[in-house]
Amino acid sequence: MHFAHDDTTRELAERARTFVDDTVIPTEPVLQEQLDATPDQWGFRPIVTQLRERARAAGLWNLFLPGEHGAGLTNLQYAPIAEVTGWSPRLAPVAFNCAAPDTGNMEVLHDFGTPAQQKQWLEPLLAAHIRSAFCMTEPDVASSDATNIGTRIRRDGDHYVVSGRKWWSTGAMNPDAAIFIVMGKTDPDAVRHRQQSMILVPRDAPGVRVVRALTVFGYDDRDHGGHAEVAFDDVRVPAANLIAGEGDGFAIAQARLGPGRIHHCMRALGMGERALALMTDRANARVAFGRTLGEQGVIREWVAEARIELESLRLLVLKTAWLMDTVGNRKAMTEIQAIKIAVPRAVQRILDRAIQVFGAAGVSQDTPLAELFAGVRTLRIADGPDEVHLASLGRAQLRSRVSIRAAE
Amino acid sequence: MHFAHDDTTRELAERARTFVDDTVIPTEPVLQEQLDATPDQWGFRPIVTQLRERARAAGLWNLFLPGEHGAGLTNLQYAPIAEVTGWSPRLAPVAFNCAAPDTGNMEVLHDFGTPAQQKQWLEPLLAAHIRSAFCMTEPDVASSDATNIGTRIRRDGDHYVVSGRKWWSTGAMNPDAAIFIVMGKTDPDAVRHRQQSMILVPRDAPGVRVVRALTVFGYDDRDHGGHAEVAFDDVRVPAANLIAGEGDGFAIAQARLGPGRIHHCMRALGMGERALALMTDRANARVAFGRTLGEQGVIREWVAEARIELESLRLLVLKTAWLMDTVGNRKAMTEIQAIKIAVPRAVQRILDRAIQVFGAAGVSQDTPLAELFAGVRTLRIADGPDEVHLASLGRAQLRSRVSIRAAE
Amino acid sequence: MHFAHDDTTRELAERARTFVDDTVIPTEPVLQEQLDATPDQWGFRPIVTQLRERARAAGLWNLFLPGEHGAGLTNLQYAPIAEVTGWSPRLAPVAFNCAAPDTGNMEVLHDFGTPAQQKQWLEPLLAAHIRSAFCMTEPDVASSDATNIGTRIRRDGDHYVVSGRKWWSTGAMNPDAAIFIVMGKTDPDAVRHRQQSMILVPRDAPGVRVVRALTVFGYDDRDHGGHAEVAFDDVRVPAANLIAGEGDGFAIAQARLGPGRIHHCMRALGMGERALALMTDRANARVAFGRTLGEQGVIREWVAEARIELESLRLLVLKTAWLMDTVGNRKAMTEIQAIKIAVPRAVQRILDRAIQVFGAAGVSQDTPLAELFAGVRTLRIADGPDEVHLASLGRAQLRSRVSIRAAE
Amino acid sequence: MHFAHDDTTRELAERARTFVDDTVIPTEPVLQEQLDATPDQWGFRPIVTQLRERARAAGLWNLFLPGEHGAGLTNLQYAPIAEVTGWSPRLAPVAFNCAAPDTGNMEVLHDFGTPAQQKQWLEPLLAAHIRSAFCMTEPDVASSDATNIGTRIRRDGDHYVVSGRKWWSTGAMNPDAAIFIVMGKTDPDAVRHRQQSMILVPRDAPGVRVVRALTVFGYDDRDHGGHAEVAFDDVRVPAANLIAGEGDGFAIAQARLGPGRIHHCMRALGMGERALALMTDRANARVAFGRTLGEQGVIREWVAEARIELESLRLLVLKTAWLMDTVGNRKAMTEIQAIKIAVPRAVQRILDRAIQVFGAAGVSQDTPLAELFAGVRTLRIADGPDEVHLASLGRAQLRSRVSIRAAE
Repeated sequence: MHFAHDDTTRELAERARTFVDDTVIPTEPVLQEQLDATPDQWGFRPIVTQLRERARAAGLWNLFLPGEHGAGLTNLQYAPIAEVTGWSPRLAPVAFNCAAPDTGNMEVLHDFGTPAQQKQWLEPLLAAHIRSAFCMTEPDVASSDATNIGTRIRRDGDHYVVSGRKWWSTGAMNPDAAIFIVMGKTDPDAVRHRQQSMILVPRDAPGVRVVRALTVFGYDDRDHGGHAEVAFDDVRVPAANLIAGEGDGFAIAQARLGPGRIHHCMRALGMGERALALMTDRANARVAFGRTLGEQGVIREWVAEARIELESLRLLVLKTAWLMDTVGNRKAMTEIQAIKIAVPRAVQRILDRAIQVFGAAGVSQDTPLAELFAGVRTLRIADGPDEVHLASLGRAQLRSRVSIRAAE
Repeated sequence: MHFAHDDTTRELAERARTFVDDTVIPTEPVLQEQLDATPDQWGFRPIVTQLRERARAAGLWNLFLPGEHGAGLTNLQYAPIAEVTGWSPRLAPVAFNCAAPDTGNMEVLHDFGTPAQQKQWLEPLLAAHIRSAFCMTEPDVASSDATNIGTRIRRDGDHYVVSGRKWWSTGAMNPDAAIFIVMGKTDPDAVRHRQQSMILVPRDAPGVRVVRALTVFGYDDRDHGGHAEVAFDDVRVPAANLIAGEGDGFAIAQARLGPGRIHHCMRALGMGERALALMTDRANARVAFGRTLGEQGVIREWVAEARIELESLRLLVLKTAWLMDTVGNRKAMTEIQAIKIAVPRAVQRILDRAIQVFGAAGVSQDTPLAELFAGVRTLRIADGPDEVHLASLGRAQLRSRVSIRAAE
Repeated sequence: MHFAHDDTTRELAERARTFVDDTVIPTEPVLQEQLDATPDQWGFRPIVTQLRERARAAGLWNLFLPGEHGAGLTNLQYAPIAEVTGWSPRLAPVAFNCAAPDTGNMEVLHDFGTPAQQKQWLEPLLAAHIRSAFCMTEPDVASSDATNIGTRIRRDGDHYVVSGRKWWSTGAMNPDAAIFIVMGKTDPDAVRHRQQSMILVPRDAPGVRVVRALTVFGYDDRDHGGHAEVAFDDVRVPAANLIAGEGDGFAIAQARLGPGRIHHCMRALGMGERALALMTDRANARVAFGRTLGEQGVIREWVAEARIELESLRLLVLKTAWLMDTVGNRKAMTEIQAIKIAVPRAVQRILDRAIQVFGAAGVSQDTPLAELFAGVRTLRIADGPDEVHLASLGRAQLRSRVSIRAAE
Repeated sequence: MHFAHDDTTRELAERARTFVDDTVIPTEPVLQEQLDATPDQWGFRPIVTQLRERARAAGLWNLFLPGEHGAGLTNLQYAPIAEVTGWSPRLAPVAFNCAAPDTGNMEVLHDFGTPAQQKQWLEPLLAAHIRSAFCMTEPDVASSDATNIGTRIRRDGDHYVVSGRKWWSTGAMNPDAAIFIVMGKTDPDAVRHRQQSMILVPRDAPGVRVVRALTVFGYDDRDHGGHAEVAFDDVRVPAANLIAGEGDGFAIAQARLGPGRIHHCMRALGMGERALALMTDRANARVAFGRTLGEQGVIREWVAEARIELESLRLLVLKTAWLMDTVGNRKAMTEIQAIKIAVPRAVQRILDRAIQVFGAAGVSQDTPLAELFAGVRTLRIADGPDEVHLASLGRAQLRSRVSIRAAE
């Protein structure tokens, strides 16, 4: 057991940190100006394209993807880089082409796509020529149970016909999101986890209708394509658009979940670190009643508590990454659940306190804190609410506790 | 000691509840439609005017105001009515002409205004012909200390000249907000609490410049006039616009604070009750893993915890109201601080849990929860952050503890 | 609605407070000396008898009991007196003859006893010539469900035969505890809540065996008769010892619970107040790093938080008392559950913080804090653990929420 | 970075676990019987000696000590073994000769003792022929600041004369505790951290007086020698008893602290694991209202939360051990503080919940939970209360935050 990153990781993480520090964060106001100037658009703003070019030139590109198409990093190696992108979640992940949901979609295409599917969709995604959406969650059913899916995918000759309604399809408001991966049932009568399939639906297929944008605490998340409700009204796509085979949808979703959850947690740590850095600066600079806020007991405690939580949870995230790398995602399920539960709520608490240190500025557009809060808050819901994961983790623990002979 | 409201209160509260239940809440979607249809406007929408007419006809008008100009209710009598308006904070308070900051401004004019000032500004406010703003908080100074005020009010012959910059002037984006009450220093060399004065500045006075709108999380609070940053560039107003005398500003602010805080807490209880009602309905209706959410342990506990907190904090608010009525606002300072600290954070926690019960819908525009959360979150900052009040209350407690002879 | 106690209550509470302040608390060390000098005894020490005589002379006697046998106080009137006794829970309740479990047992005899039973047992209890125990909880069954009782009470001619095992019979280690009220099943085949009966079993009846003393966090609570495990091995008592009729046991238990719970909560508030007073004195006196602890942020916050919690929970207790007085214990069930849940845990937190302020002295015999902590900790378990009450309260809330028309 | 223990560690930890599982825990009731049978004794009971022989034979002896005198393990290697001993803190640490305060005292003698001191005191300690005490904390001064020490050590020819009063000298009630390491001031006028020295005072030196035993909650901790108040009334010892030089006391204390704190945290994790195991068994076995406790939501959540906290905090402890091994105790100060704060309070919460799951049995002598609770509770005070460490850690964080260019 030892706790130092290897040289590759340290070098890459340092490069990423310098880039975020010197290039990304200073341009955050530019992004805001461009968003304010064109309030009716959902596509990427020019600054994103510029940053992408610079990140790619700096060798900070597609680092999330293991194997030859990507940078070949392990989860453990990617972790500190992903964390750095969490410092500026509106810009850094897209700049590095490491933003959800594209990352998960690229993984799906990489692991399960046919060569033709990869050529048509994975390559432009890796090159950032298009974006994508993942259409899984549905209104009106508890999304924490994938077997509830109501969308149908029916075979009809050489085509499939997709019918249903999805929401919280992140990024789908962006007209550049050219391809949607849609989860639906091909066989509602199959055994529970063989009913679902995944299929590629081009945005411009007849019958695809982006109905409306959902907001998150008032934010439309326009900078990264928003969150759409999407109707699929008898959409016909070629049979070759099916990903893997009929009935493989649940397995693909599960495979997609592990990396998705750990990436979210890695970035969330970065958001927590940024909140702590902002809180620290404010506490050192702001004077009230004759002393800096940092010289007053309770804020000093908040700073200490934030540091302790970030350190211990980072270790749990890193160990989870290491387990995924060494024993596989499936055997790391308990740890993945643990970080999915523990990290977002800890970072939410840190953000809430950072807001409190900033006062009115903290809830406004003058700091990134309120928007970070909204983003982290959704992580406690996305992909199953905390309570579902706690119940599942608790059940596993109750079944398999470490045995020890009890005193009589 | 007894815990039943008097007949007047019960009758009025019941009438208010029926009105909110039957007339206000069902029109919330109408307000949203009108807001969506005119995204660039900050004024009241037609539905507000309609509701006001109906509320006035129902005898639910200016109930906040003690004395002859208002309904003559005590704080204790007004409390349950204010709570009911908290169920629909975008519409009910304005419908009843009981919305901040107009309430506080009307109180100031009522208690400290000259007959001329009252005729010019109080009467149209009581009739809801205009709205108003209160310009106190400034960027760049810790607003929890009123002595930090940087705005200057200088006598110049028959006029005063106001120079400074304010922010978080709630309602000031609304062009109907015709009058601003501005706090500034007339004599920076006077003793600490005699430096400040308050003055009436009409919106259309030359030099008044509404600079920008601030957001709360992602909400612009357009429905009630937003939150403005306002610049006063050497604004000249007649000397008769001064409220009370030079140096009275701090005392007026203090007088305004008590009712303001308790009104916020009363409404916050209503927000908490609505969250609990929504959470309850959802928990009863939503099925996951074969049982309703309400049949599952942890959400049942949340519901119970919410009920316990709302009951105990309501009693603390009511006792505070009773103290204000019987011994005066000044002697109720500890209790006012206590509810200012305790109520918003409890309601924030209830809202956070209600959101969790709703999942993704909870953070979106499809329930009122996220917007209520944002609103309640600001109460922990507005008018002094919790920590300032905790420190003050703790200090008072340390000085004056109940004496008891210690065991040796 | 108003929040002032009546004159009788104020006068009595002031008298009780003076007595506890001047007479009881200063003798706490005397009790400890007497306990240390006779480590093998479970009976009352001389100081208790002396204090009782003085309390009786001061008119502070049997105040808990409504009606002619007692002081005729309502629950609301008794509340502040009971709170005062909580400042010194080892001595004040027994000094006033208001200590559990005698209070509950006297209520049972008062409300359900025959004249003969009252003459034989109630009168000496009211005169404090004997003490009593209540034998309800059993090892090995979840005591939160009274229908689980395993003890049998069988009719045999003119006698009943009691067989079973009880534990946590508080006070039963004291040889002066002359009478045990025992709950058992007379008819296991009856409907759920008609199976149980209560019967009077004299301590010296053949077959009664006090097996052992249980400890609470290392304390044997010797000062008030400890907590016994008691075996009833075919104990024969006259049929006239049955309280009320066969099958009435559950109803009597329920009737006993309401006052028992509220008395515990009232005293717990007093324990919280004493902890706060001790913490305050320590924080004012103790200097670390150049300033008193009270001048350092976090302890000042603890003091403020304790004050806020005690104030709001006291109001909830008082309202519950008022409801019991006006609509009856049954209709006050939700409130009784609420205080049963909320008060002990709040006071536990206050005690935990008070201990922290005292450091090592706080966990030792040099302050009363650790023992108060142990006592309050058991209240979260006694009479049903918090979780059972939260589930029950949550269920009631889910069934009966305040109706309001939801926005569509 | 990787997260697997090396082979040596795995083998030793497994051996320790088997020993604790099969040999130590089943004899806990034997220890209790021996304690109950001889209530007036403070020395080790026969079972301890027997277990020591068996542990020594099993190669589980002095594992805490790095270097040739001990097992030569690093902190990282010792960590999982220490954790295992935490499962049975009354017996396992002494059985392995790894119990505080002997461990710290042996380290001091090992690192700073002269060969003569080592021969006289270290060797019998390593052989478990004697025990020892560490006399540092004093009544009436804030022990978190070592410069407050009031005890004096005055040179007088070939001797030193020690005068002062100590308390919380753990183990000192045991007559086998033959040697006391006493901290005192040799030069009150020196610079702050050169005033103190440490000296070896044999228990039987004239003037040494063990005044009384302190209790922790109601426990006297008789099984491991209790906690004594000790008076040193002009105790003369040879000058050769000084450890290192005059003025070295503070540095020795600091060197002793790091390992002491991490050992406590390691064992506390084991206590938390045992509580979780007990809670799990109880939740699986106990039926209430028709289902096991584990099938009811809230207890399942507690189990999950406990697992998450133990996992993340264990990683923080292990990383701290690794830092101590690789960069030294001084550079690991922040991490040592972090675990000192975070571990005990987490384990306290787990124990509190475990108690709740057990109900009345949980607070009694029938489970180890209440005593474990008392033990862990003191860790939040011993060696400086949490608040002192939080303030210190917060201050360090405020000074040295990771720099990042802020958005303007």
